[in-house]
This record gives sequence, structure tokens and C-alpha cells, in this order.
Amino acid sequence: MAGSTFGTLFTVVTFGESHGPAVGCVVDGCPAGLSLDVKAIARELARRRSGGEGPAPSGRKEADEPEILSGVFEGKTLGTPIAIIIRNTDQRPGDYDGLRDLYRPGHADWTWEAKYGLRDHRGGGRSSGRETAARVAAGAVAGVFLASYGISVRGWVSSIAGIKIPSPGQAGFDGGEAEKNPFRIPCGEYVPRVNAALEELRQEGDSAGGEVFCSVTGLPPGLGEPVFDKLDARIAAAMLSIGAARAVAFGAGFAVSAMKGSENNDAPFAAKDPGADHTERSFQAEHGGAAGALPPGVPELSFRTNNSGGVLGGISSGMPLEFTVAFKPTASIRKRQETADRNGAARELVIEGRHDVCIAPRAVPVVQAMASLVIADFILMQRCGR
Amino acid sequence: MAGSTFGTLFTVVTFGESHGPAVGCVVDGCPAGLSLDVKAIARELARRRSGGEGPAPSGRKEADEPEILSGVFEGKTLGTPIAIIIRNTDQRPGDYDGLRDLYRPGHADWTWEAKYGLRDHRGGGRSSGRETAARVAAGAVAGVFLASYGISVRGWVSSIAGIKIPSPGQAGFDGGEAEKNPFRIPCGEYVPRVNAALEELRQEGDSAGGEVFCSVTGLPPGLGEPVFDKLDARIAAAMLSIGAARAVAFGAGFAVSAMKGSENNDAPFAAKDPGADHTERSFQAEHGGAAGALPPGVPELSFRTNNSGGVLGGISSGMPLEFTVAFKPTASIRKRQETADRNGAARELVIEGRHDVCIAPRAVPVVQAMASLVIADFILMQRCGR
Amino acid sequence: MAGSTFGTLFTVVTFGESHGPAVGCVVDGCPAGLSLDVKAIARELARRRSGGEGPAPSGRKEADEPEILSGVFEGKTLGTPIAIIIRNTDQRPGDYDGLRDLYRPGHADWTWEAKYGLRDHRGGGRSSGRETAARVAAGAVAGVFLASYGISVRGWVSSIAGIKIPSPGQAGFDGGEAEKNPFRIPCGEYVPRVNAALEELRQEGDSAGGEVFCSVTGLPPGLGEPVFDKLDARIAAAMLSIGAARAVAFGAGFAVSAMKGSENNDAPFAAKDPGADHTERSFQAEHGGAAGALPPGVPELSFRTNNSGGVLGGISSGMPLEFTVAFKPTASIRKRQETADRNGAARELVIEGRHDVCIAPRAVPVVQAMASLVIADFILMQRCGR
Amino acid sequence: MAGSTFGTLFTVVTFGESHGPAVGCVVDGCPAGLSLDVKAIARELARRRSGGEGPAPSGRKEADEPEILSGVFEGKTLGTPIAIIIRNTDQRPGDYDGLRDLYRPGHADWTWEAKYGLRDHRGGGRSSGRETAARVAAGAVAGVFLASYGISVRGWVSSIAGIKIPSPGQAGFDGGEAEKNPFRIPCGEYVPRVNAALEELRQEGDSAGGEVFCSVTGLPPGLGEPVFDKLDARIAAAMLSIGAARAVAFGAGFAVSAMKGSENNDAPFAAKDPGADHTERSFQAEHGGAAGALPPGVPELSFRTNNSGGVLGGISSGMPLEFTVAFKPTASIRKRQETADRNGAARELVIEGRHDVCIAPRAVPVVQAMASLVIADFILMQRCGR
Repeated sequence: MAGSTFGTLFTVVTFGESHGPAVGCVVDGCPAGLSLDVKAIARELARRRSGGEGPAPSGRKEADEPEILSGVFEGKTLGTPIAIIIRNTDQRPGDYDGLRDLYRPGHADWTWEAKYGLRDHRGGGRSSGRETAARVAAGAVAGVFLASYGISVRGWVSSIAGIKIPSPGQAGFDGGEAEKNPFRIPCGEYVPRVNAALEELRQEGDSAGGEVFCSVTGLPPGLGEPVFDKLDARIAAAMLSIGAARAVAFGAGFAVSAMKGSENNDAPFAAKDPGADHTERSFQAEHGGAAGALPPGVPELSFRTNNSGGVLGGISSGMPLEFTVAFKPTASIRKRQETADRNGAARELVIEGRHDVCIAPRAVPVVQAMASLVIADFILMQRCGR
Repeated sequence: MAGSTFGTLFTVVTFGESHGPAVGCVVDGCPAGLSLDVKAIARELARRRSGGEGPAPSGRKEADEPEILSGVFEGKTLGTPIAIIIRNTDQRPGDYDGLRDLYRPGHADWTWEAKYGLRDHRGGGRSSGRETAARVAAGAVAGVFLASYGISVRGWVSSIAGIKIPSPGQAGFDGGEAEKNPFRIPCGEYVPRVNAALEELRQEGDSAGGEVFCSVTGLPPGLGEPVFDKLDARIAAAMLSIGAARAVAFGAGFAVSAMKGSENNDAPFAAKDPGADHTERSFQAEHGGAAGALPPGVPELSFRTNNSGGVLGGISSGMPLEFTVAFKPTASIRKRQETADRNGAARELVIEGRHDVCIAPRAVPVVQAMASLVIADFILMQRCGR
Repeated sequence: MAGSTFGTLFTVVTFGESHGPAVGCVVDGCPAGLSLDVKAIARELARRRSGGEGPAPSGRKEADEPEILSGVFEGKTLGTPIAIIIRNTDQRPGDYDGLRDLYRPGHADWTWEAKYGLRDHRGGGRSSGRETAARVAAGAVAGVFLASYGISVRGWVSSIAGIKIPSPGQAGFDGGEAEKNPFRIPCGEYVPRVNAALEELRQEGDSAGGEVFCSVTGLPPGLGEPVFDKLDARIAAAMLSIGAARAVAFGAGFAVSAMKGSENNDAPFAAKDPGADHTERSFQAEHGGAAGALPPGVPELSFRTNNSGGVLGGISSGMPLEFTVAFKPTASIRKRQETADRNGAARELVIEGRHDVCIAPRAVPVVQAMASLVIADFILMQRCGR
Repeated sequence: MAGSTFGTLFTVVTFGESHGPAVGCVVDGCPAGLSLDVKAIARELARRRSGGEGPAPSGRKEADEPEILSGVFEGKTLGTPIAIIIRNTDQRPGDYDGLRDLYRPGHADWTWEAKYGLRDHRGGGRSSGRETAARVAAGAVAGVFLASYGISVRGWVSSIAGIKIPSPGQAGFDGGEAEKNPFRIPCGEYVPRVNAALEELRQEGDSAGGEVFCSVTGLPPGLGEPVFDKLDARIAAAMLSIGAARAVAFGAGFAVSAMKGSENNDAPFAAKDPGADHTERSFQAEHGGAAGALPPGVPELSFRTNNSGGVLGGISSGMPLEFTVAFKPTASIRKRQETADRNGAARELVIEGRHDVCIAPRAVPVVQAMASLVIADFILMQRCGR
């Protein structure tokens, strides 16, 4: 299947170059009869625009106004493809003339040419982060579908510029805070420190990496297709499909390699076990896991811990699905860099224009969108009884 | 698509339960005219059986003799589906009677029932590590195909039971050593220490996690489909589809989140730049990267470093593709564990039988097989000019 | 996707060459918990073997004993891939030495080489009708699934050697007769005439074409995916995927091109319309159509006629799905034919061995199998609410 | 995969309702570097609008101006998704108020509701013929790609209102004539007769069916994936995916069922056989077949006849690919019809507005577009060496 299509039943294809007429998506497979308002899409696009270091990240001024071209009639989804376009109103292709024959370090400029023989050099063309606007629009549709199941997909920045942010259960953590600061960190106290670190990098003309944590609650157990199409395998692919992502880890993540089995195994217990001490609340209940409808004769279980990140054997356990994605520092920096040009000559490069010092904050809605698309797909899969 | 099928053009479907009549695979899309000997498959299956802690991991005695049922005629592939089966000769289903109504911690027993309503409880059924024998057989076919392109997929254990093994460039590293010791670590000096650590865990009835590093050299630049079907996205999915894998990281991995852009960006240079100092050898030349045929007018580049792990914008850069996979500790441990049974009653469980203390060594050929399948698929994609 | 895989959710991959070790299939996506007995598969394979002109069509003596390798445990499907193999016990590759370098007219010998550069020449290799044994095995699994929905897939020969057999509603038609004579024609009176026609062709060393009619009853309305993946589009592909099929027609078929809209439109009426004359029974009720569960507010309709063949806009109407497939005469004939060899030289060819004079009778179970696979796939699709 | 997506490597997704804001498509997988002008798309859209009975079929006044939103840069394809939209400028939804609760005979109104529970009733919504504008746009892109291979896809009306039009080789046939008359028939003499027949039906308020013949020349041998994904199987699906198509036949079509093998088998001969009488020109040379590059050692063959329609064993033979599609009469007629409404009440219906008496002429470019998409997909498949 062509590389711009994602999903099996709840599918999306995205299209568009950064400085072409528009970016957009076609969502196919969204069930009929769902209330869908263009505002729900616009809201997520606004979240993607904000974050980072202020009101105008990437220096772009687009309103990012989505237009729904199809698939919705009298406010309800028709079950037919939902096409959404977002015009690129702030095209300034002239700004990029200097990059026509130059390969920016850390970007896909040369690999793109190695593959296709040519590229749209304006702002990265299709390899630009702008493509993620189309994903966020599609993810918003998936989000509306998931909300009807009581599934919630949250995300925040858990590490930025080398600064680890408190995580759930640690002092200072406040999940509700994440959407209130431009860094999307769930801890108000850390805002000044992060701000200072990023400001210093900005002054240097340099950039920072970061990590995004994502938690999905309300997932029924039984989601995911065993063997190759495991829930975590699909989430991993979805995350690594985001331009700057370099790693993904579920639950205890890389730490598992230094754990013992007796530490790592999450102990199951019957959620309704009459002998259990109900004053001891389960991790699941505390953290928003859900127990969906189970096949007849299968008991409702919960787990004491969630090192697995909510996935056992590729299938959701009913515990929160939890994973972390590492994003590399913004490749476009003002610092002088060595590179090569289309003639194979050595060149020096200073990238002008305003770029996010760290893209992790703006990656949060993209991570959420991709997770929503994966889960919507698996919900449809599960519906068909497999 | 059903969860047991993998790939777009070079596809594989695996089948089989751990204690059913057989496991096997059907590889479709392998080009015609390739010399394929069943011994190449048997050799990889033997590698999968060995490793770990001695001659008989998992206590199974199978010869793992593959039989090719189709797709090969007079020693050559026909371009038709290649079916390979491996009989399960060491079936001892009676051993598992005690587990019929019990959910083992860290296993997919309960999630499988939550999905399907029933399961083959004998040795994990389809969620058993035995399923990977079919992947290794399929990967061996892919490996023969890749060898015809000069592409080499190597792997070893880079961390085990919390012990970090020297990596390329570090003192003590010796890639050739990895296949000579049962832990598949690329450093002879560490063998006694690792052995002692695992032996201690075995005595305790506990288990260990580990990490597998994989390096693919000889890759032409331009492999991978941008946007959703990126080379690293597909590799990530392939890795997380292996039962015990919990995380995957490319190149500098999670460390990117604390790096600056100026540190992380890999500087490109023209591999044939006449002004370059050729005494300074490129990372690529030193580490086995390859410069494949490029479209007309596109210069041959190399990179000073490989923080990207050989992938830029989801497309291979011609540098070695490098990634690390974290495996959780073996879930089956002898230590007493709390769990629940099918009636929702609390139960205690002691898992008898001999299990690998750490599965990472035996996961090495599985990681290689999955990487080979992904790359074979993208080679076919690239052939079709996309 | 590779050419030997079929279906989206209920998928099958077939493998095997005519004179290789085995043919077989892997069915993935069959729901868990279904009772599946290998005898149900053996029974359909026996139907495929018989038919035609007596007890040993194609001169092959195989018992065609299916072996289930996976996916079934204690008589129930597990939801995992069901692998079935059928050993080729009657391999006589030596018989085919004369055809190694010769291209048989009407066969895929040369096109296969034009594609792959080589072929297994023994009995057509993979392009042999023997491949359909694997389809019939897979279709038997689908049939068990469909039976649980009350869906019935019937077929018979409606034309053979130019002789049109009476169709439903015509004098002499008796559907129950079809499985009682070797030509699978639904009319006992025609048996002697058909027998004579085929015997004459056999004496001449020639062969005959035929048509297979298929009727699927019990289909709920609403099956099929609009636009490209219409129910009739998928059925058409499934039918043309059978080696000798050359045409497919739904309902009134090619006759529609000479009909008026007022003749062709099937008049709908409310199946429970209180004002309707219930002495006038609907076509649907008479012919075994079914009214499945409809979304809230959608009335139950039936139709006065069924020119559409049970499909409107690619979606099942609840009327019987009806279509006809034309099969060309057996390509292997004893009559002397002109052809060419691998050296490009003109050659004369007389094909020895016993071949079916007409393959239509043995194609009936293949048509049924393919229809069953398509419908099983759409049933799963519909379950997921799309 | 969702029903609005078509193809494996050269893929298209279409979207849009008849009276929504726009219809459109996203073509993914089109190779990079191809010259693509929006005018080539506009030209095919104009062909789709015309034909039938005069200047304003369907009474719609749209200019059908395509806008390319992505995938083309400086006149060349980028290898990225090509999104094309066509605004619906002539929306008159009010015209359809009377049909909101009424099911039109011969249309998908009720089956659509049976599937989705709701529909856009305005002009058929997504089941409208207007959706084919998006297919024609996508097919135009495929056509540009195929032209670079010297492949030509032609089509015309071969039967209309029961009148058989002369076919190639018959007196009166003139392929060049087809685009010069509104009925797209390849025979000027028949124009008045066809005109009279359709005019009579129009007066009656009735409609006519027809057949479209399509011929693809310049196809290399070896195209098509054996077994399920045969060239003819995919063409069959593509044709039956067109709303009003009811049957498809290749080469000799349904007539094969009454032919003998000795008549039906197309005799091969070496195209460069030194002993052949070259004054006897081959069918292939005469009819525009092509001999593409063959694998080493495989001789170039041609065939004396083309009963197979250019496909043997699902693989192109190098002979022209020839098939016929039957279209039912336009379902919307002015004649009074019986039907039912959403309350299950019997109703009478007279459909006002101007509708094509026969849609076959306007179906010609749609048939060509779908054939182009299938062949473009297989060309990419063949490129990847399978």
C-alpha cells in the first residue's frame, strides 16, 4: 500500500506539501451516524499550532481553517469518506530559494532526492512537519469516534532539553497543568526552568529534544491483533511515522532490560474477587483503566501494577495504554553547519527564519492523533469479532 | 488485514500453535529464480533453538526440521508462495493441564481469552515464543534475497540482566564473538560475568531482561515510504511484534531527548567531494554503509556521524540502519506468584519446567528475521520505482 | 498485496504446485469458537474431485485428504490462522517431460515464463486447476461460518457444450437433481443429451465450455462496501480468478443492455406493508431471500423481481445474490494443435492423458467456495458496523 | 481496506457526495518525475460530461474544473499523493426534497440505508454517478503514466438500446468515429438509428441499456498476479465497481460456453520464427499488441487469434486486452413506478428532471479510467520483479 495511507478499517490518507496549495486528508471507514462538527477539528488544529515557544511557532501565520468536503450530511457522518482540506495561506516559497540545491543536515532533503530524483524544496515539501496538520485533522475525527466509547487519549511532555518532568505519582505532577503552559509539561513549577533552558538554546541558535508521554484510558480489554498486528506494534509504527521521533517505549520501557521477572510481571487479580481487600484500590481503577464487555465465562481482571503499559501479547489488558516517544532536537538551527550541495560541493549553512527550539510540545497533539487513529482502527476490528 | 500477515509485496503469513501439529509460514512475493536450499532455513532455525543458557532452551527437543511444500522447483524459487512447515514433534500437552484455567502473570493468557473467549492453553498456544520459528524460517528466505543485494543483517545482545556490553568502538567489543558464546554478546571478557548473573537468577527461580542491537549494512539510500510507511516505522512495528519486546530505539535513541540539534544533526558530505580530506574516512565507509545507484543528478553523500541510525525522514540514508530492542524478563518464573483463575478466584502459581532465564540471546535471530522481512519488502517497493 | 492472498478480514492465502509436495491454504480471520471438523473440508474436496465424466477426472487418484495444522483446538476454531494441507500423492512428474520446453495452447505456460522467466512445467505447476483444491478447503471453512448465519451458497451447471439447461421457473428444473448427476445439471431429463454431446467431443479429442449459475440465499441486506469494493465487484474478481472463467454476469446479465428501465427496475415494496396483498408472495420469500436486522427506522423491503441479482449500488438487497460464470472449454485436448517451443520453433502438439471434456461441473464447488469466501469477508465487514 | 480505496501500489481513494461541496480523489503511488498538466485531467472530465444525448446530460451545468492540491511541483509529479478536487457548483439540493423519504427503484437508496442507517438523499449522494468524475480524474493521471509506456486504452459503445454496433473487422466499423458522435459508437451509419431509438424512449419517459467495449494495446506480456489477483479478475472488479455495470466478459466472452477447445484455443507462434510466413501477419501486429521485454531465454510469441482477450492464466499475453461491460438502463425514468417510502407505505413515483436515456456513452471514459488504474497498478507490480 502506498506510504501515505494508514489503517485497515478506519483508514486515513494524507496529502499535501508544505508550500503547495493545501494539505489535507481523507478518512475512510468512520462509522455512519456520528455527530461531527468542523469545530472539533479546528480545535485540535489550534492545539497543534500553539505550544512551543509562544504564539507563532514556525513563524507561520495560517489560520489552519479546516474545510470538510465530504462524508458529513446535516451534521452526521455518512459512513463515506470524510475529506478535509486546510489551505496553505502563508506560502512564501521565495524564502526557500537558497535551499533549492542545498541539503539541510538532519532533514530528509537528500534521502528524498535519493528516492525520487526530485523534491519540493520549499520548507521540506511533503517531509515538512506541516503534513502533521492533516494527521491532526484525521485524529480529531477518530477522537470523536473514541469519545463515544468513553476512551480518552491524553498526552504531555515528560522530558525536554534534558529536564525530566515529574510523572504521575511523583511530587509536583499535575496532569491538568499540561495544557496551560506552552511547553505542555504537567508541572507548573518546572515552567520557568524549562523556559530558561530553551531561551538559552535559542540565543545560541541551537535546539532541544524532548519526550512525549501518552496515556489512553477507557480501553476495553481484547483490542489488538496478535502476532504481527499487535496493539503496541501498530502504536510503535504510528509513533515512528512522526518525522522527528527516534524511539518508543511501552510501560516500563527500556528499564525492563535490567528488571527481574518477579519485578516486571504485573500480578493479575479478579476485579470482583469477593475475597479481595477492596480498600486496596487497583492500579486500573486509580488510573482510569476500563473493563469492557468480556466474552461469556471470562472473569474481569485487573492488575496490581502496569509495567506492561496496558498491553499483554499485543492485546490490550484494560489497563491504561502507556508509552513514551523520544523526539530529536529540531533539525533547523541557526548555528553554522557543514553540509553539501547538489553538485557535491562542501557548503556552510545558516538556517534563517524562526523555528521551534523544541518540537516536543507541538508533537503532543500529533501523538494523540496517531494514537487515536490506531485505536479507532482496532475498535472496528474488535467489533467484527476477531 | 488479518494479524498473522506481514508485508506489502514480500509478504509472510505465519500459523501454528505451540503444541498443535505444526508451525509454519507462507512467504509470498519472493522473486523467481533465486537459489533456495532448505538448509539455509534449517541453519537459522538451529540458531533460534540455541543461545540462551545451553543446549536445550525451553526444554524442547525438537529437531525443528523445515519442510518446503511449495514455491521451489529444481532448487530455484518460482515466484509463487513458498510454504514451509515445522512439525511440533515434542508435544507434551499433558504438562499443561494445570494451566488450563489459570492465567500466568506476564503472559497473554487472559488478554487472549478477553479477545477470543477461548485459547489453546498448552504452552501459550499461538502466543508462545514457538511461533517465532515460523518467522525465522520466513526471514531466512528474505535473507537469501537480501544477500543477492549485498545487504547484511547482523545482531547481538547489547545488554543483559542489567549488564551493558561494550558496543562498537568501545574497548572489548568484538562483533565476531557474538555467535561464539551462548549469550550472543560481542565481548568474550563479559561471558563469565553474564553467566554468573544469569546463574544466580536461575537459582532464585527468577529471570532477566536484555537488549538486542541490530545493524543492517549495504542498504541503498532511498528505501522506505515517506509519511506512514517509513523504514523506521515499519522496523518499529516489526520489533514490537516480537512477544517480549517493550521498546525500540533508532541511532542515538532516547538520548536524543537530551541532545542539542548541533550535536544530533549528522553532517553530510559528498562522498566523492574532490576537496575532501580522504585520509579522514567516512563513518559510512568504516561501518559498512553502501551507496546504491542514485537517480541522475543526485550526488553521492555520506555522513560524519550516524545519530539518525541510518534513516532520515523515514528513508534510508545509505548509512548502516541501527536500532536497539528492549526485551522484558522471561515471564515464566519458578518463584511463587499471585494470580487469578477462570473463576475469578485468587491463586498462587509456581511455573515448573525449564525456561530460559533470559530470552534476549534467542531473540537475536528473530530480530534479524523481522528486519530482513521489512527490508526485503522495501527493496521490492523501491524496484517498482516509488 | 501478493497475488495468492484473498480477502480483507476473512483472508486466505493458497500455496502449492500441481506436482510439488502439497497444496494448501491458510485461512486467517475466521472467528473463534466455531465448531470445525476436518470432515466438512474433506466432503467439499470430494465434491471437487467428482463431477465431470466419471469417477476419476483428470486421471488423478489422490484421496485429497486434508490435514488441519493449526487454528483448531478441541474441535473449535481459535481465532488464529487455520492452515490446511493436502498432499499431492499422485505425482507423476515424468509424464510431463515432453512439455518442459513446449507451450500448450490455451494454457498459461508462456505467459508464466514471460512473467517469471521460469516455471514448474509439471501439470501446469501453480497455474494448474489443482490449486483450486486449496480454495475449496478454505471455502469449506467459510461455509461453516456462513451456515451459522443461515446463509446458503448453491451452484449448478446452467449450460454445457452449448446446451442450455432449464433454469428456476422453467419446466424441467429441479435444483435437488444437480448433485445427483455427474454434470451437475438441475434437470434429470437433460442428462442423456449432455452425456451424448460430451461423449462425442471426447471421441473427437475435443472439449466443451459451460456456465455455472450460483445463488446465495439468506444474505442480510446491507452487505458490501460501496464504490470500489462492491459486493458484485468482489464476486466478479473472485470468479474471474478461477482459471478458465471468461465472463461473469449478475441477475439479468448481458440482457440488460437491451432492456428498458421500466422493465429492468425491480419494484420495491414494504415486506410488511399492511395494505399489500399477501396472497401475492414476494420474489424474495419464494426464492429464499432474507431480511436481516436493519438499522432503526429503516423499513423492511422486498422486491417484485430480481433483475439486479440481489445487489443494488454494490450492496446486498436481501434478495438472492445470483450470478452466472462462463467457463471456456478445457484447453488440454487430444486433437493435434500448432504451437511453439522455447526455442521459438513451430511445433505440433497432441496432449495425451485423460482430461475432463468440460470443467464446468467440477468448477461448481470452486465457484461456491469463492463466493463463500467473499461473503464471509463482507459479513465480518458488516459486523464492524461499516 | 475501506471501500473507497482502489489499487495496491498505484492507489486511488475517491470522496464526495453528489450535492456536497466537492468530489475528488487522492492518487498515491504515481512515480515521480512525470509531466502532469491539469489540462489532461480537465480534458477527460469534459469527455465524461459530454456524450449521451447532447450538451447537458443529467441537466448539470458544472464546468467540472479540477484543482490539483498536491503532488505536483513545477509541472512534475513528486512521487507524493496527488489530490484533485472538483467543486460541485451546481448544487440544487432543494430539488431533491421529495426524495428524502422515498426509495427510487433501481437505485441504491434503500440498500444504502440498510447498511448505514442514513443517507444523503440529494441526487443519490455518494452512490450518484457524479462520484465517477473523481475516478476519471484519477484515471487521467494513470493515463499519463501509461502513455509513457506506449500503452493505449480505448473504448466505445458496442451495443445500445438493443442495437448491436459493428465491431472491428465488421463492415461499417470505424474506431475513429466513436468520439465524433454523442453515442460514442464506432460507426457513423448507425447514428441516426440509435438516435431515433433513444428519442423514442425519451418520449416514453423510459431508458435504455448498452454495452461498452474496451481495448488496451501496447501491454507488455507478463502483467498480472497469478491466482487471486489476475489481470482479468482485477479488471472485472474495476468494471463491476461502476454503478450500473451488470456483467463483464473477456475476449470471446459468454460465447466460450458453446465453443470447442479446438476453436477457442489461440494458437501461439514465434513472432520471429524464421520459418513462418511473414506475409501472414499476426493478429497481434494487426491489432496493436506489443511484445515487451521478456526474461532471458523466453521467446517472443504471438497468437493467431485472441479469443482469450489478451489474458492467459490471469497474465497478459501481449495481445490486446479486450473486454465488454454491460450497463443496465438508467434507473431514473419519468414513467410512473411503484415503490415504498421510509414508513413502509406503498407509493407511486415519477422522477422529474432531465436524465440520460442511456448512460453507456458517458460510461466510456469511466471504463477507460478504471482500466487505466488497474494497468498502472500492475505495471508498478511488474517493475518490482514479481
